[in-house]
Amino acid sequence: MRALDRDDALSPLRDLLALPPELIYLDGNSLGPMPRQAAAAVEQALRHEWAQGLIRSWNDSGWISRARAVGDDLAPLIGASPGEVLVADSTSINLHKVLGAAMSLSRRRDPTRAVLLTQEDNFPTDRYIAQGLCQQWGWTLREAPAGTKDWAAELDRPDVGILMLTHVNYRSGEMHDMARVNRHAQARGVLTVWDLAHSAGAVELALKAPGAAADFAVGCGYKYLNGGPGAPAFVWVHPEHVNRTEQPLRGWLGHEAPFAFEPDYRPAPGIDRYTCGTPPILSLTALQAGVRALRQADALGGMAALRRKSLSLTSAFIECSSAAAQAHGLTLLTPLEPQRRGSQVSWACAAGGPDGFSVMQGLIRRGVIGDFRSGPRAGEPDILRFGFAPLYNTHEEAWRAAQALAEELARASTGPLGAVRRPLVT
Amino acid sequence: MRALDRDDALSPLRDLLALPPELIYLDGNSLGPMPRQAAAAVEQALRHEWAQGLIRSWNDSGWISRARAVGDDLAPLIGASPGEVLVADSTSINLHKVLGAAMSLSRRRDPTRAVLLTQEDNFPTDRYIAQGLCQQWGWTLREAPAGTKDWAAELDRPDVGILMLTHVNYRSGEMHDMARVNRHAQARGVLTVWDLAHSAGAVELALKAPGAAADFAVGCGYKYLNGGPGAPAFVWVHPEHVNRTEQPLRGWLGHEAPFAFEPDYRPAPGIDRYTCGTPPILSLTALQAGVRALRQADALGGMAALRRKSLSLTSAFIECSSAAAQAHGLTLLTPLEPQRRGSQVSWACAAGGPDGFSVMQGLIRRGVIGDFRSGPRAGEPDILRFGFAPLYNTHEEAWRAAQALAEELARASTGPLGAVRRPLVT
Repeated sequence: MRALDRDDALSPLRDLLALPPELIYLDGNSLGPMPRQAAAAVEQALRHEWAQGLIRSWNDSGWISRARAVGDDLAPLIGASPGEVLVADSTSINLHKVLGAAMSLSRRRDPTRAVLLTQEDNFPTDRYIAQGLCQQWGWTLREAPAGTKDWAAELDRPDVGILMLTHVNYRSGEMHDMARVNRHAQARGVLTVWDLAHSAGAVELALKAPGAAADFAVGCGYKYLNGGPGAPAFVWVHPEHVNRTEQPLRGWLGHEAPFAFEPDYRPAPGIDRYTCGTPPILSLTALQAGVRALRQADALGGMAALRRKSLSLTSAFIECSSAAAQAHGLTLLTPLEPQRRGSQVSWACAAGGPDGFSVMQGLIRRGVIGDFRSGPRAGEPDILRFGFAPLYNTHEEAWRAAQALAEELARASTGPLGAVRRPLVT
Repeated sequence: MRALDRDDALSPLRDLLALPPELIYLDGNSLGPMPRQAAAAVEQALRHEWAQGLIRSWNDSGWISRARAVGDDLAPLIGASPGEVLVADSTSINLHKVLGAAMSLSRRRDPTRAVLLTQEDNFPTDRYIAQGLCQQWGWTLREAPAGTKDWAAELDRPDVGILMLTHVNYRSGEMHDMARVNRHAQARGVLTVWDLAHSAGAVELALKAPGAAADFAVGCGYKYLNGGPGAPAFVWVHPEHVNRTEQPLRGWLGHEAPFAFEPDYRPAPGIDRYTCGTPPILSLTALQAGVRALRQADALGGMAALRRKSLSLTSAFIECSSAAAQAHGLTLLTPLEPQRRGSQVSWACAAGGPDGFSVMQGLIRRGVIGDFRSGPRAGEPDILRFGFAPLYNTHEEAWRAAQALAEELARASTGPLGAVRRPLVT
């Protein structure tokens, strides 16, 4: 493992993050660590831009264009171009925007298509939003079974207007073949809406792949982008569509002339029409530092190099943890095939085996931070989830975490239960 | 003026804000200044809670309940009770939520009422949102003429379901008689939706006044609440309604059991159902400091004392600036009657008189920061707007600003024009 770390050209990037030295942090897919520059940038925004500049900082410190500037920094990480990505609001709010826009666009194209297709194991928020919008629009929400699959048959059904998928599943870490899905969807006149919450900053993305482009995408700022707790999210719309779409959450900053305070709404050209209200500048400034930290990898091979390292890390962890995990009845939920694997490893607990919550609490007490997810439906197992962030995690951490897991599994299968369950945030 | 400041029991509170000593800041109705505690609290959130605590801070540092905690701190400032106010998203997004909820509630009560009544001079965002929702719901948006008025006749029309008003007008500073409007509306079965953007923290509010209660309210965190640029906004729903409403922007944190990741949406009880996604913790932490700074006035008479001081400041500025303003053809847009005046003073420019933009640029160069608003419709004058925040502004500042205005008006009516117009954010 140390040899792999020694050969890792990306290893100097770890120093961009303020990681507590005593921890092995494998929960960057829930909340990424703080980039050192984030503290400096936010303190500048507080003490100079806000306190001294006051209202003048909207112009003088570029607050007014910061959301677009961060979008421009972020664009190459997801295979988009500058000017196409906006940072705003939360992932949930942005999903409301793009789903509303996609339903309106789909209806104009072909009013007989009124099915929104998704999967039963999609992230709950995405399903709640889709349920609500389908009720409102008189659409049907169709839920395909869990897992990656060949979507051709589902997409062949002529009533499907939109396919909404989360690229990397939050529980299993399983990843869809986005290009293949997009190609199928495009051939059948179905619009695609992608949630990149567990992808952006961790896996390569090519939203505009020729012949296999996505139509809409949203994603999260506080996971692999290291934007800080509750960082603003991002939204992207294919530039061929964007000016033909209107999102439902109108606000003054999405107006073509926001400072004219005109009586009627005219959406701004391009992705700016997906803005609603005033962005939270302090949180946005931290996200800017997070995105810029990832962009430091550009000179070292960029997302392709980060993706190679991510697969190397998750492979190492699977290899080192499998014997003990399987001995205690755990099952690997994460695909072994690299092209179907995101940047996390999930072990499913067995009924009657060690209590997953207690195992994770034990790991956290030892300084190995992953997270625990209970099974949301009857029959779904609890899982132990380990996120690997190629920007800062090391192979040695993967190995040490696997050792700690083995020890905690042994302890939990013999020792007393007892920790009080407390929720950890996704 | 100095005597008034000497007798001002609230004057020690000014020191809670980090105000640049060389400035007279009269734009706190656009962006409030930084509370000293905000810098300390955000730096703690960065360097301790995020960098050291990482994901554990959702529990250990109370991130998960911070939005409700700030709402509880804020509640007394608007005449609400703890547990009734949520801090989340932007004012625009929250207005989408409450208007959607109100339309749904109104339709269940009486489907024949399908008019949303507002005013033509309401803040543009509020009108854009209402336009969009009316289109979507098949309602009619009816716009009464500008200004405060007796709403009885409008509310007597049996097709009105909802009245949406901004309590204090952003241009004129004119304030509605909320209790009287609410009493009329309640008697006629009309739901009220109030935008408190220019009220919260500046004027007394009694959302639950007996017999004259409001139904829904939203407001802004970065004006008189001093929450920082783009601070999260707030939302309040009358506790008698809240569990009978469902807002349209579903998200995981508004679920009754957000950590269970259940497949179907069940709105949380109470105001928590108005949550959508994850709150921006850094910006929320700054807002907490802003709200707490205002609550320091509790021991000195609270909002009633702040309101008295606000009226004293705006009266002083009107008195000191009137002679010069009127000599240059300016008209006072802000009502002289205290009960119709918010916490700002707006002078309307005359056609052919001094150029308002150039006057305000001159004032800003001299360190007197107000703002300029161009007339949004044909025939509407440009205005010079001066916001007075009773937490920190002084009577001496009102007097000095009036002197500076007189000098700039004299300069602008003789000197060359020339400043390039640049927008300043509302």
